[in-house]
This record gives sequence, structure tokens and C-alpha cells, in this order.
Amino acid sequence: MAELTLGDLGEHAVIERIVAVAPSSRNGDDAAILGQAAPNSRTVVTTDMLIENRHFRTEWSTPEEIGQRAILQNFADIEAMGARPIAAVLAIAAPPSTPISFIEGLARGVEQRVEYYNAELVGGDLTSGDMVVISVTAIGSLGGSAPALELHRAKPGQTVIAAGSIGYSGAGLALLKAMPRSDVPSSLSPLIDAFVAPTLNPGRGMIARATGATAMTDNSDGLVFDLSTIATRSKVSIDLDPNTIAPDALLLEAGELLGIDPWDWILGGGEDHTLLGTTAFDVPSGFRAVGHVVKPGTHPVTLGGEPPRTTSGWVSF
Amino acid sequence: MAELTLGDLGEHAVIERIVAVAPSSRNGDDAAILGQAAPNSRTVVTTDMLIENRHFRTEWSTPEEIGQRAILQNFADIEAMGARPIAAVLAIAAPPSTPISFIEGLARGVEQRVEYYNAELVGGDLTSGDMVVISVTAIGSLGGSAPALELHRAKPGQTVIAAGSIGYSGAGLALLKAMPRSDVPSSLSPLIDAFVAPTLNPGRGMIARATGATAMTDNSDGLVFDLSTIATRSKVSIDLDPNTIAPDALLLEAGELLGIDPWDWILGGGEDHTLLGTTAFDVPSGFRAVGHVVKPGTHPVTLGGEPPRTTSGWVSF
Repeated sequence: MAELTLGDLGEHAVIERIVAVAPSSRNGDDAAILGQAAPNSRTVVTTDMLIENRHFRTEWSTPEEIGQRAILQNFADIEAMGARPIAAVLAIAAPPSTPISFIEGLARGVEQRVEYYNAELVGGDLTSGDMVVISVTAIGSLGGSAPALELHRAKPGQTVIAAGSIGYSGAGLALLKAMPRSDVPSSLSPLIDAFVAPTLNPGRGMIARATGATAMTDNSDGLVFDLSTIATRSKVSIDLDPNTIAPDALLLEAGELLGIDPWDWILGGGEDHTLLGTTAFDVPSGFRAVGHVVKPGTHPVTLGGEPPRTTSGWVSF
Repeated sequence: MAELTLGDLGEHAVIERIVAVAPSSRNGDDAAILGQAAPNSRTVVTTDMLIENRHFRTEWSTPEEIGQRAILQNFADIEAMGARPIAAVLAIAAPPSTPISFIEGLARGVEQRVEYYNAELVGGDLTSGDMVVISVTAIGSLGGSAPALELHRAKPGQTVIAAGSIGYSGAGLALLKAMPRSDVPSSLSPLIDAFVAPTLNPGRGMIARATGATAMTDNSDGLVFDLSTIATRSKVSIDLDPNTIAPDALLLEAGELLGIDPWDWILGGGEDHTLLGTTAFDVPSGFRAVGHVVKPGTHPVTLGGEPPRTTSGWVSF
């Protein structure tokens, strides 16, 4: 028996299925009302769109993983402000021929990541289109009166800090481009996971902000590219310590398998959605030191004082 | 000379062009920080996705009109809660072959509508895709401690109120489907405008809430469909007074031209994005009475006591 599609079920039944998987007391009115903010808190908002065959492929990722990634890459932007993700809205376009199980899996992945952050899916939109498009907007709460972790607030003398793996997602993508997922050696599955469903421990951005970090971003477009943005906006340069970001055993193994220098993934891969920041104080819990903020030089980012070989990052066109 | 495309310019240059047309001091960080909320205010959020050749056609609408509509249909959802739109984020997918003038026009339309509401575009995302997809999330502020205008709050005995034209958008769409826009008689241009770039006076929803309205929605999926949602959620029925919504001279002229009964557009057309609500008090400024809330009957919505001939509404699949 052929599987039920969105076209078979119709919009309203599909929405009912989504709400069954990813329930919210706020679904269904014209707009969702969030709880009253604390007097000192500010609202933080970010949006990211994922396009089939560009940001994900159904041969590479399960529907659950696609949903997880859609939330995580938005929540990472909220964390990178030093704020707490509290809510998300989810707009989906999909062809009528899409199996309902795909949308249910996607909603399940969304719900998993949203719950992991104690946040809530508060609404969405569903429409038909020639390809699958997933658009998430995340809402965060920035508590207290301290400034947010903004791109322009790095200062010479600060330590550059990072939470999470760097280069894993780029390596995972290279593996999936080179061979079917089922052929990837199981020892390398952390690299695949980093691409298809990246993780970021909730609260890291808030901890960094509470302990004196000033600038932060997430590693989305590439390490050198994203740190260059901080350096340029802050009118500083950033010198990375190569030893702290050098390829580990997993990246070396993947590099050898594919004949690719793993430094390409580390410096240019992006999409790890791990946090990169700067602080003048102790390295916050869950972070490690990876370099120093220095006075502005010829290059926004250097590696052990030298210009990095790879500066390319992800661009959409 | 061929016009510059997104592919020619590259992502970052395209974003610079968008920011030039639709500037915001909050563009460009990982997420946008909104002003601190008033102690009593709550945040309201809604999202809507527009797909090329499904929600708009470039033969029918200018890029400016597409941008205007993308904002308006989201802001109408905020207004329908009795809240004030304060901010929007805009995600765009477009093929690399898209002329930059299209994106600039779209951004101009977005900015026009956002400014009209004294709101602000606070961020966005740009990516390539096989078709144009526009995803807007609107953020509103619900001031004071009074409840929002929710779908379940209609009560028997209340007056049904409406602000703005009903059926104009449906008529405009029918005209565009029947003939090139340039062939539409100029006398009928208000119908075209209602489809390509609907308008809604800012503040109508807040005024209705302040003067005692309880339930509200916007006419997006069709008059009977949307009022049925209020009726079902509120466990009431709604009886419309046919005289108050009967086709006016413009709708009659379009109906005659196309050989279509204009009641189809009034009852089932939707997409006017005008406000529909219920109140036990005086009809608020800018609204008119169009019916009454009654005890639940066989049909959620009736027309002069009779079941309406047309109950269909817009569905995506």
C-alpha cells in the first residue's frame, strides 16, 4: 500500500498530525502569545531557512535529523547572543507528493530539540511548493541588564574561546558527498552526526555572558570567516593557536580516507554551530581557549601569527 | 547590458543591497535584540511563507507589491490578536539568476509596510533555491493585562464586526487569472490592489480590544471558513447579515465582466486580510457590524439564518 501523502490528507489533517507530534498550547490562533517577560529581559529573534538539496538531502539525513538541525542552527544564534531560546515558529513548504511520515519525522526532530532547550514550538505555517523549504524563527530571552554578546565587542588582550567541535560538520559533509551514508565507517559517525544533526549544550552562551565574555558568534559559515566578522566589526585581529584547533584522530582518519587536508574543514567548513567568543576573564565552563584578540593587523584572523591558507566560507550564491 | 543577478553579486553584496533599501540598526548580528518590553506587555509571534507561482506571480505583482503583501499578511495576524506589530524578520530563497532589482524591489515593499506600522525589519536570511520563497515572521507587543483577541472568545449575543473590504482580493485574483493585468479596466484596480498588496489600517485590532472586542481573526482563508473557526473554537454559531456584506458596485462589475457570482469571492475568497471580530459593545472605530453571534446551531456560520452556499476556503493541499 502506498504511503499517505500530504496531497492525500489535505492541509488541515497534515497540521493536525504535526501538532500531535509537536504539541503546543499556543498553536492555532492567528499568532502565539509568549509569557510575560521579566521586567529586565529583552526579546531576541533570529531566522534561518533550509532548502532541500542545498542545506539537506533526504539521502543523507533522516527527517528527524533535518528537524533537529533546523532548530539547532537557529537556537545557536540565540545562544551566541548570550540569551536563552524560549520559542520557535516553523514554516514548511513541501510538494503534495511528500509522504506524511516525512513531515511527522521532521516535526518529531523539531520537538526533540525544542524540548531539550525547555523551549516551545508556538506556531507555524504549512504550504505546498515544488521543493521542501523549512523556515524557522527562534525567539530568545536576554535576561538582566548586561549587554548581549555582540560581534563588535571583542577587545585586544582577550582570550578567544570555543565550545564544541570545529571541523566535524565539514568532514561529515565531505564523507556524505563521497560515499553512501551506510558505507561511512562507524568510527566516523560523530562527524556525520555533526553535519546532519549538530548539537550544542543549552546555556553555554548565557554562562559565557555571565562570566564576562563580550563578543560571540556560532561557527556557521566557517571558523576563519566567522571570526573575521568579529574581528572586522570589533576593529581587532584574532590570532588562533594552531595547537588548540589541530585535527584530532577522527578528523585525521576522515582526511586520510578522502585524501583531503582536515585543516580545510577546520578553517573553512562551518556549520558546526558551536560557539566562538572572546573574554577577558577565566575560560567559561564548557569552553576552551583557542587564541587571542590582538590589535588590528593586516589580516583579521591569523593562525600562529601567519595568514591562514583557507579563508573561504559558506556563501549562498 | 544584461541586468545584474544574485549569482553575479554574491550573497554578501546582495545582503548589503537589501540593508541599503531596508535598513535596520539590528541587522547583521547572530540575532536581533528588541527593545525592553513594558512590564505588562507580552510578545506575540506569527509566521507566514509565500511561494512563487502559488501565493504570487511576477506577471501579476511588482516586487514591491510582493514585499508589501508578505509583511501585511503577517502584521494582520498580529493585529488580529489585538496587538501592535513591532518587528519582522525576512528570509528569502531565490535562484541565482534572479535580477537584483527584484530583491531590491521586494525589500522596498517590505520596508514600506514595516514603516507604515512604525515597526522595524530586524534581520533575515538569504539563500539560493530553485524558486522564490519568502518567509516572514512578525513580532508584536500585546500591551496591558487584558486578554488577547483569541478565536475561542466569541459569545452569543455579541455583534460580529469587520474592518475593510471583503471579497475584493478574491475578485482581484479572478481578474488576473482571466486577463493580463494591463487589460483589467482601471475602474477595477482597487480589486487588483486588494490582491497584490492588501492594506489594513494600523491599530484597528488594538482599538477593537480596547473597546471590548473579545474574538478576532483576519480574513485570510475565506469569510465563512475563518468565521467558522471562531464559531467552532468558541462553541457558538455566527449569523451574517447578507445586506452588510452584499457585493458593491465594483464587485458586481467584476462579476459581470467574468461571469462569476461575486458572492463566491465574498464568502470563499479570503486573502483580504481584513479584520473579523466579535464584541458586546459599540462597533469600534473603523469597523462595521456584519452579523451576530448566536447559540451553537447546525451550521457554524449562516447567512440570514440559512446555510451559506459557499463554505470553501483556501487550503494548501
